[in-house]
Amino acid sequence: MKKRIITIGEVLMRLATTGHNRFFQADDFKVHFGGAEANVAISLSCFGQQTSHITVFPDHDIGKTASNYLKKNDVDTSNVKFLDKGRMGLYFHEKGAMQRSSKIIYDRFNSSFSFIEAMDFDWDAIFRDSDWLHWTGITPAISATAAKFCSTAIMKAKEHGLTISGDINYRRNLWQYGKTPKDIMPELIANTHIIIAGLIDFENCLGIKKNSFEEACYVTCEKFANIQKIATTRRKSVSASANRLSGVLYDNGDVYLSKEYEMLQIVDRIGGGDAFMAGLIYGLLYKGNQDALEFAIAASVLKHSISGDANMASVEEVEKLVRGENIGRLLR
Amino acid sequence: MKKRIITIGEVLMRLATTGHNRFFQADDFKVHFGGAEANVAISLSCFGQQTSHITVFPDHDIGKTASNYLKKNDVDTSNVKFLDKGRMGLYFHEKGAMQRSSKIIYDRFNSSFSFIEAMDFDWDAIFRDSDWLHWTGITPAISATAAKFCSTAIMKAKEHGLTISGDINYRRNLWQYGKTPKDIMPELIANTHIIIAGLIDFENCLGIKKNSFEEACYVTCEKFANIQKIATTRRKSVSASANRLSGVLYDNGDVYLSKEYEMLQIVDRIGGGDAFMAGLIYGLLYKGNQDALEFAIAASVLKHSISGDANMASVEEVEKLVRGENIGRLLR
Amino acid sequence: MKKRIITIGEVLMRLATTGHNRFFQADDFKVHFGGAEANVAISLSCFGQQTSHITVFPDHDIGKTASNYLKKNDVDTSNVKFLDKGRMGLYFHEKGAMQRSSKIIYDRFNSSFSFIEAMDFDWDAIFRDSDWLHWTGITPAISATAAKFCSTAIMKAKEHGLTISGDINYRRNLWQYGKTPKDIMPELIANTHIIIAGLIDFENCLGIKKNSFEEACYVTCEKFANIQKIATTRRKSVSASANRLSGVLYDNGDVYLSKEYEMLQIVDRIGGGDAFMAGLIYGLLYKGNQDALEFAIAASVLKHSISGDANMASVEEVEKLVRGENIGRLLR
Amino acid sequence: MKKRIITIGEVLMRLATTGHNRFFQADDFKVHFGGAEANVAISLSCFGQQTSHITVFPDHDIGKTASNYLKKNDVDTSNVKFLDKGRMGLYFHEKGAMQRSSKIIYDRFNSSFSFIEAMDFDWDAIFRDSDWLHWTGITPAISATAAKFCSTAIMKAKEHGLTISGDINYRRNLWQYGKTPKDIMPELIANTHIIIAGLIDFENCLGIKKNSFEEACYVTCEKFANIQKIATTRRKSVSASANRLSGVLYDNGDVYLSKEYEMLQIVDRIGGGDAFMAGLIYGLLYKGNQDALEFAIAASVLKHSISGDANMASVEEVEKLVRGENIGRLLR
Amino acid sequence: MKKRIITIGEVLMRLATTGHNRFFQADDFKVHFGGAEANVAISLSCFGQQTSHITVFPDHDIGKTASNYLKKNDVDTSNVKFLDKGRMGLYFHEKGAMQRSSKIIYDRFNSSFSFIEAMDFDWDAIFRDSDWLHWTGITPAISATAAKFCSTAIMKAKEHGLTISGDINYRRNLWQYGKTPKDIMPELIANTHIIIAGLIDFENCLGIKKNSFEEACYVTCEKFANIQKIATTRRKSVSASANRLSGVLYDNGDVYLSKEYEMLQIVDRIGGGDAFMAGLIYGLLYKGNQDALEFAIAASVLKHSISGDANMASVEEVEKLVRGENIGRLLR
Amino acid sequence: MKKRIITIGEVLMRLATTGHNRFFQADDFKVHFGGAEANVAISLSCFGQQTSHITVFPDHDIGKTASNYLKKNDVDTSNVKFLDKGRMGLYFHEKGAMQRSSKIIYDRFNSSFSFIEAMDFDWDAIFRDSDWLHWTGITPAISATAAKFCSTAIMKAKEHGLTISGDINYRRNLWQYGKTPKDIMPELIANTHIIIAGLIDFENCLGIKKNSFEEACYVTCEKFANIQKIATTRRKSVSASANRLSGVLYDNGDVYLSKEYEMLQIVDRIGGGDAFMAGLIYGLLYKGNQDALEFAIAASVLKHSISGDANMASVEEVEKLVRGENIGRLLR
Repeated sequence: MKKRIITIGEVLMRLATTGHNRFFQADDFKVHFGGAEANVAISLSCFGQQTSHITVFPDHDIGKTASNYLKKNDVDTSNVKFLDKGRMGLYFHEKGAMQRSSKIIYDRFNSSFSFIEAMDFDWDAIFRDSDWLHWTGITPAISATAAKFCSTAIMKAKEHGLTISGDINYRRNLWQYGKTPKDIMPELIANTHIIIAGLIDFENCLGIKKNSFEEACYVTCEKFANIQKIATTRRKSVSASANRLSGVLYDNGDVYLSKEYEMLQIVDRIGGGDAFMAGLIYGLLYKGNQDALEFAIAASVLKHSISGDANMASVEEVEKLVRGENIGRLLR
Repeated sequence: MKKRIITIGEVLMRLATTGHNRFFQADDFKVHFGGAEANVAISLSCFGQQTSHITVFPDHDIGKTASNYLKKNDVDTSNVKFLDKGRMGLYFHEKGAMQRSSKIIYDRFNSSFSFIEAMDFDWDAIFRDSDWLHWTGITPAISATAAKFCSTAIMKAKEHGLTISGDINYRRNLWQYGKTPKDIMPELIANTHIIIAGLIDFENCLGIKKNSFEEACYVTCEKFANIQKIATTRRKSVSASANRLSGVLYDNGDVYLSKEYEMLQIVDRIGGGDAFMAGLIYGLLYKGNQDALEFAIAASVLKHSISGDANMASVEEVEKLVRGENIGRLLR
Repeated sequence: MKKRIITIGEVLMRLATTGHNRFFQADDFKVHFGGAEANVAISLSCFGQQTSHITVFPDHDIGKTASNYLKKNDVDTSNVKFLDKGRMGLYFHEKGAMQRSSKIIYDRFNSSFSFIEAMDFDWDAIFRDSDWLHWTGITPAISATAAKFCSTAIMKAKEHGLTISGDINYRRNLWQYGKTPKDIMPELIANTHIIIAGLIDFENCLGIKKNSFEEACYVTCEKFANIQKIATTRRKSVSASANRLSGVLYDNGDVYLSKEYEMLQIVDRIGGGDAFMAGLIYGLLYKGNQDALEFAIAASVLKHSISGDANMASVEEVEKLVRGENIGRLLR
Repeated sequence: MKKRIITIGEVLMRLATTGHNRFFQADDFKVHFGGAEANVAISLSCFGQQTSHITVFPDHDIGKTASNYLKKNDVDTSNVKFLDKGRMGLYFHEKGAMQRSSKIIYDRFNSSFSFIEAMDFDWDAIFRDSDWLHWTGITPAISATAAKFCSTAIMKAKEHGLTISGDINYRRNLWQYGKTPKDIMPELIANTHIIIAGLIDFENCLGIKKNSFEEACYVTCEKFANIQKIATTRRKSVSASANRLSGVLYDNGDVYLSKEYEMLQIVDRIGGGDAFMAGLIYGLLYKGNQDALEFAIAASVLKHSISGDANMASVEEVEKLVRGENIGRLLR
Repeated sequence: MKKRIITIGEVLMRLATTGHNRFFQADDFKVHFGGAEANVAISLSCFGQQTSHITVFPDHDIGKTASNYLKKNDVDTSNVKFLDKGRMGLYFHEKGAMQRSSKIIYDRFNSSFSFIEAMDFDWDAIFRDSDWLHWTGITPAISATAAKFCSTAIMKAKEHGLTISGDINYRRNLWQYGKTPKDIMPELIANTHIIIAGLIDFENCLGIKKNSFEEACYVTCEKFANIQKIATTRRKSVSASANRLSGVLYDNGDVYLSKEYEMLQIVDRIGGGDAFMAGLIYGLLYKGNQDALEFAIAASVLKHSISGDANMASVEEVEKLVRGENIGRLLR
Repeated sequence: MKKRIITIGEVLMRLATTGHNRFFQADDFKVHFGGAEANVAISLSCFGQQTSHITVFPDHDIGKTASNYLKKNDVDTSNVKFLDKGRMGLYFHEKGAMQRSSKIIYDRFNSSFSFIEAMDFDWDAIFRDSDWLHWTGITPAISATAAKFCSTAIMKAKEHGLTISGDINYRRNLWQYGKTPKDIMPELIANTHIIIAGLIDFENCLGIKKNSFEEACYVTCEKFANIQKIATTRRKSVSASANRLSGVLYDNGDVYLSKEYEMLQIVDRIGGGDAFMAGLIYGLLYKGNQDALEFAIAASVLKHSISGDANMASVEEVEKLVRGENIGRLLR
C-alpha cells in the first residue's frame, strides 16, 4: 500500500565547515548532498513510501557519488541522467551559533542540471503507476531548458492523473537567464494542486500582494481553480540556535493552524521546509487536514535535530512527537 | 583514610555515532566503555576512594582494552578474569538532540560475562579489608551463573561485614534465561542495606505496587528489615537536551528531598544514575543523610556534562556545585 | 581612511581538548593561538583597520607557526622578533559545559617573550604614521624586561602623539619577578587615555578600593588627569554555557550603559573581553560614546559564538546585531 | 547487455582501529561493511553488471545501515530480509604495518543471518532472468539453517540454468553447529561450475590431499564432473605491507598462470580474494581463460589500494592495469 | 639581499578525499589551496625571498580564505583583487596508492580569475624594485582577458628589466575560449628568458615536434633568441607511490643532468613541478647551472613528502639533501 | 614467575602533528606520552613482567593524565609523585617522510621532574622484592637534584642486590646545570651491570674515544669491572621511512651480532632504542646472549610499526618475528 512519489530537481553538494569554524577558519569540509525536491523524496522514503528522483549529474565520480547518496537513502535513481556537460552544483555552509547567523554561499551556475532537457526522459514510463509529482520554484529559475523540463513534467503528470504539489520557493539570486518568475510560474501553478507559498512568493511569482496569508490564498485560489490547498511554515528566529516553528494550511476558505514548537539547540536548520513538505504529502495521503498539518510541522521540528539536508525521521517518530510521547527519553 | 569499595558487574563497549549522526548516517564510531557498577567504581576512584571491580572479559585484545580502561581510571583490576568463552558485550548509541530521543541498541547476549562463575573468585581475599560492596539488578538478569555469582558475592560480603548497596535497575529486555526478577531479586535485596529503586523496580522485582515512593519504601522496609535507606532520582525530560533532576532519600520513615537542578545542553546522560549512586555511597560514608543526597544529585548533574559512561568529577567539584560556588566561571 | 593600531604583548599557544573531553580523557588537542593584545589586533583587522603586533617568539618552527597565525589574520608581523632564548608560552584548555566550569592550566614561564628587550625595537619606525597603541596589564606582570618594554612603548607612543589604551587585567598568578602591580602600574596608567578596569583591578593595581565602578572611576580620574574614559564588561554566569553580558563606559562623570544580551550555548568565551576592547577602540575611533559602547558589547557577544581566542566578526555583522537585524536568519 | 548475478551470504560490520593504532590504543573505530559474497556483488556492480544480494540483517537501525551500504553501492536489496532475531555480525580489525601482522577478531555467532531460512525466499522470482549465482563455503559453516539455505539456493539456481560459482574458503573457526565441511561441502560442490580453492580447502572440504594445485584439480574434476574451472590466487607475504600476487586457473587439464604483481604499501588487503573472484566472474562472462585470469588478478591488485572490504575499481581501470597503461600517473 | 619575485595566476581550492578514500567513499574533504604560480611564490618565500602574487578571487568569505592562505605563507597579497563576478575555482582530488592512479576532477570554469583584466593593476607599482616575473601556460589558456592580462604582465615586466620565467605547461582541457596555444603562446615565449617545457609542450604550443629534449631546445632557441635556459623534470612512474625523479637543463647548447632520486611512499605529488620551478629560480639567482639544477630537483623531491600543493622546505633542508646529509635522521 | 623491574626517569608529553603535516601546517596535535625509561617499563609490562616507574609530575590534571597513561599500560604508579613546582615536560614532533627527516623540538626545562629529590622516595620499600633497575643518561643530564636522585637509586638498588642496566644516551642539548657528563657518568656506570652505549656515548661520557665498538667495550670493561655486557643497535637510514636495523652485544670479549632487518614504511621510530633495551632486559632474564640479542632487535623492529613512544608488542609476537613465522599474514 505504498504510494509512488516522483520528485524532480537539482541536487547540490554541501561543503560545510566543521565544529563551529567560520569560513575563515576552515581546514576541512564535511560533505553532504541536498536539494529541495530530493530532500522531500528522501524523507518520504524514510516514511516508507516509494520514491524516484529525476535529475542530472555530471558524468564523473563526484556526480556518481551524489547519485549513490540518493540510492543509499532508498530513492530510486533509475531516471538519473549523467551528462558530459556542466559541473556539480555546490554550496558552502558556515553554521551559525548564538547571535551569529548561518551563512550559505552558492556556487551552482552552469551545473549539469542547468542543461537538463525534457525530451531526454521517458515520461510515460516514469509516471505509469505513480501517485504524486513534486516540484519547486527553484527548477524553473535555473535555466530555460530546466523551466521547460519542469513544465513538461507537470503536463505529463497531469495526463497520468497524478496529484501535483509545488513549493513556490522564490529565490532572488537565481532567475538569471532572461525570464522572470511572473513569465513562467503562473502556468506551472495553474496545473498544481497543493502549493507551499508565503507572502513573498505570492508577490514575486504571481504578482499577488496581500497583507495576510489567508487573503493571498483566497485571491490565488480564485485565479487558479485547480489549487486545492496552500500551506506554509511560520518561523520565529530568536537566534541561530533557538527558533519557534508552526504551520498553517488553507483549504477552500478554512485555515488550519498547527501547534507551535520551541526549538532550542538547533542542529541543522537546512531542509526544514522540505521536511515540512514531505510531512504534508505523507499527511495528505493518509490523514485529514489538521492531522496532516500537525504531522508536517512535527516532521520539520525533528529535521532540525538531524545533520544534513534531508529529514531521516520515521513515521513512528513523527507521530510520537505529535502525541507528545517519550520526548527526550532514552530509548533502549 | 580511604575506603575500599568493591563493585561487581559487566562492562560493555559503547559504540557511539559521532557529531549528531543518526545510525543511518554513521561512518565511524567513538569507543567508550561502561557498565552500571564499573561506572560507580570509576566515579568513587575520582572521589579518592580505593575501588576494585570484579568482572569477566573475553581473552583477546578487545577484552584487554576494556580492562585497561578500568585500570587507567584507577580501578583495581587484579580480580578481572579473562575467559576463552563468549564475546565482548556491546551497545550502539545514537545521541539525541532537541525533540529527537537518544537511542541504544544492545548487543550483549552470550558475552563472556554471562559465563562468569562464582567459584572462580577468591572471595575472602577480595573482601578482606574492604568496606562496601555494590551490585545492580542487571547482573542477576544476565544468566543463571551470573545470578549465582551475584548472590555469592552478597553472601560473602555479608560474612565479612561490608555495607552492601544495590541498584535494583529492572531491565525488561534482559531476564531471558528462564527466571523472573521475582524468583531472584528478593533474596538479594534481603541482604542489602542501601537500595536504589523506583516504582517500576518495586513492582517488577518485589511485586510491591504502590502509587508513591514513600509508600513503596515503607512496605519494602517492613518486609526487608535489613534495608536501611532507599533512594532514587527524579528526572523531568523536556527534550533530549534539557532535563530537570532531583533526588529523594528514604530513611526509616523520613523522606529527604534534594535541590532540583535545571540541566540545559546535556552532553551525555548515560550513567547519570550511576553517578548518583557513587555520590550517594561517598555521601553516606562521610556525611549525614541530607548532605549525602545533595552530594549525590550534584554529582549526577556534573556527569551530564561529561562524555562517556562514568562521572569524572572530583569531590571538590561536586561540593562546589552543592554550595553554588563558581558555577560557569572560567577557572584559571 | 584606515587607522593604524599597534598592539604589544605575548601570544600563547592554546592546546584545547576536543569534543567535551576533560583533561583526563584527552587524546588529541586542537591548536589555537591567542593573547589578550593580539586578539585585539586580529579583531581590529577584521574591522578593516591596519594593525601591527609587537612580540617575541622562540626561533623555531613552532614560533614561526605562531607568527604565521597573526599574518594569516592580517596583522602585520614585521616587528615580530625571534629569539634563541626561552620557549613558546602555552596554555591548556578544558571546555566546560552546563554546571561544569571551563579550566585553564597555564604553562608560560620562561617564554621567549619574558626575555623581550625594549631596545631591540625601532620605536620611531613603529609609531610613525600610527594612531593608537594598546597594551594590557599582563605584559608588565611577566618579567622585569617585559615591564620595561611596556613602559618604553607607552613613552614612545606618547611622544608620537598616539592615543593609548590599556586593559588593566590584573592576573594574580603572574607578577612573580619581585615587583608588585602597585610598583609598576601607576606609571603606565599615568600615560594612558582609555582604560578597561573592574573593581578588582582598581584595588590591586592602584590601591583604589571602592564599592562601585562609578566611584572608582571618579577617584582614578582625579588622580590620573590623562585618563579620558574607563570601561568594563558585566558578566552574569548562569552556567558554563549560559551568560548574560553588558558593558559600562565612564567619561568625565557620565556613565553609559549598554543593552544586556542573553548568551545561550556559548561556543568559546575565551577572548570575550579582548573582543570588547577591540570593539571599543573601533567604536571610539568612529562613533560617539553610547554607540561605541553598544558596538563593543555586541562585538563581544559575537566572539562568544566563535572558536579560538580572537573575534572574527566584521563591522557589518556587529552593527547588524546592534540594530537587532537578521538575528538567527539563514543568510543565503 | 548487462548480466544479472545473484550473491548469497552474510554481511558483517567491520570496526577498524584508525591510523596505525593497535587494539590497545583504540579510541575510535572506522565503520565498514563486508562479506565475501557481498564484496563480489559490489565489485561486479562497479564493473557495470546487475547484482542482487540475498541476506538477513537484524531488524533495527544498524541492520538497516548495513543494507543501505549495499544499496549505495548499486547492489539490489529487494531480497534482503530483516529478522527480529539475532544480532549484527561484527569483526574487529587492527591493521598491520611492516613486520607486524594485521589482526581480525570475529564476533559473529548468533547473528541474524545464522537464523536464515531457505523457505523465506521466493527463489523463482529471484533467479528468473538471472545469469549467475555465487556462494562461498562460509555460509554452510555458519548454522544448519544457513547450510540448508545455501544448498536450496544452489538447487534452485541449477533448475533455472544459471552458472554457479563457489569459493570454498574453508574457515577453521566456524563449523561449530555439529557438522563438518566433509558432511556438507561435497553436495554443494557437485552442483557448482566454477570453483575457487587452494590446497587447504581441497583437503578439509573434500578430503583430497595433494601436493600441487594441478593434481588436486585433476582429482577433484574426476570426482565432480560438473566442475568446469578451478582457480586460486598465490600470495607471497614479505610483510604486512608488501606482498606479491598472482593467479592460477585450471580448465580441463590446462593450467593458466597470470602475471605476478609486486604490491608495496598495501592499503587494505581484506577482500583481495573476493576481488579476484569478482574479476574472474566478469572475465569468464566476457573473455577467454587467460584474459579472464589476468583481469581477475589485476582487479585483486587494485583492491589492495582501496579502503574497505569491496573492490571499487571499474572495468576500465582494471583493463588499464592489465595493459600496463598509465600506472601511477596523475589522471587529470 | 632578498630578491623580489612576482608571480601571476589563478589559485584553486583543492578538495581532497581523506585517508585512502576514493571519491565514491568520500564523507569529508580536506581543504588545500594551490595554483602552479602561487605554489612557486610560496616555495620561494620559504626560501627566504620576497614574493608577491597577482590574482583575482571572488568577493566572499571563501575568496578571502584563499587570500589568507597566501598571506599566512608569507606571500604579499596587496595586489590580490576581489571581484563580484565569477566563482572560486576548484579541483577535487582522489589520492592514488599502489597501482591505482591519483585522480583530479577540475571545476574551474567561470572562476572570478577568468574575468581578470590587465588594466585593473598598477603594473609600474608592482614591478618597481622587483627582480623576477613568473608565469605559466595555464593563465593564457583560461580566457581571452586572462591571456591579455598575462601578455600585459610580461610586457610591463620586460620594460622594468625583470628576468622572466614561464612554465609552458600545456593543458589540453583548458583553451576553450576560441584561441589555440599556437595563437597565443609564441608571443609570450618571445619575451621570456627561462622556460620549463617538455616535448608535448614544444609540440602543442610552438609546433616544434622533436624526438629529444635537446633537439627541441636547439630549435626553440634558434627561433626565440631571448630564451636563455630551458629545463624540465623527468619522472618515471613505477606506481602512484613510487617514482624516480631527475632534472635536465639546457643552456646554449650545453645539457646539464641532475642526480636521479628514488621516491618511495610519496605523500603528495601535486605541485612537484612547481617546486622544481621555484628551486630553479632560487638556484639561478644564487648559483651556477649545475648547482641550480641539483637544488631544483632536490626541492621537488622534498615537495613529494609534504601535504598540500606548495613546497614548504627551507633552503637549508634542500641543500642538505643535495649534499646527501642527514637523510632520514631524527633531528632533535 | 614474573620479575619486578623498576625504571626511573622523566615522562614527557609528545604533541605530534597529524597526517603528514609539517609544524607550519599544524592545526591539531595528537597527544602521546613517553620517556626513555618509562617506554622500557611499558614494553616489559607488555612482555608480562611486573614494572614500576618512579618519576615526578606537576600536580594538576595534565600531570594526572600522564600518570594515568602509565597505569593504563600496566605500569605501577604507586611511587609517582606530584609536585606543586615546575611544569609538564613537552616535546613537539613533526613526522618525516621520504627524504624529509623527522623533527623534534623539546620544551622540557623547568619541568617538575627537574625538581625531583632522592630523599622523597622510600627506596627500601621500592627495591624490596625487585629484580632489576633501569636508568638512562638523560636523568643525570636534567638537573643537579635529578643526578643525585639517579645516583641514589643506583646505590640503593645495589644494596638490595638488583641487576642494574643503564642506557648511556648522551644528549648534547641537556647538561645545562653546570656539570658535564664526565663529572657524573663514571660513578653511575661504575655500579651498573648492563650498558647500552655507542661510540659517541663512550667518548662524551667516559672520555673513551675508539674507532670500533669492540675496542671501546674492551677498554670500558677494563676500567669498570662491574660491567657484564654492553650492547647497541646499528641503524642505516636510507630515508625517514626506510631503515635497516641490527644489534650487537659484547660480553667478556665475545661479540654477538643479530640478524639485520629491513624496515620499510616505518610508522613511528621514536622509542626504537627503548624497545631494544626492554627486549634485551627480557632476553637476558630468560635467554642466553645470542637469543636475548635476537629478541631485543626483533622487539625494536616491531616498535617501528607502532604509533607512540612505547613498544606494545607481546613476547609471542616478538618470538614469532625472531623465528620468521607468519610475517605479514592476516591473523584471524
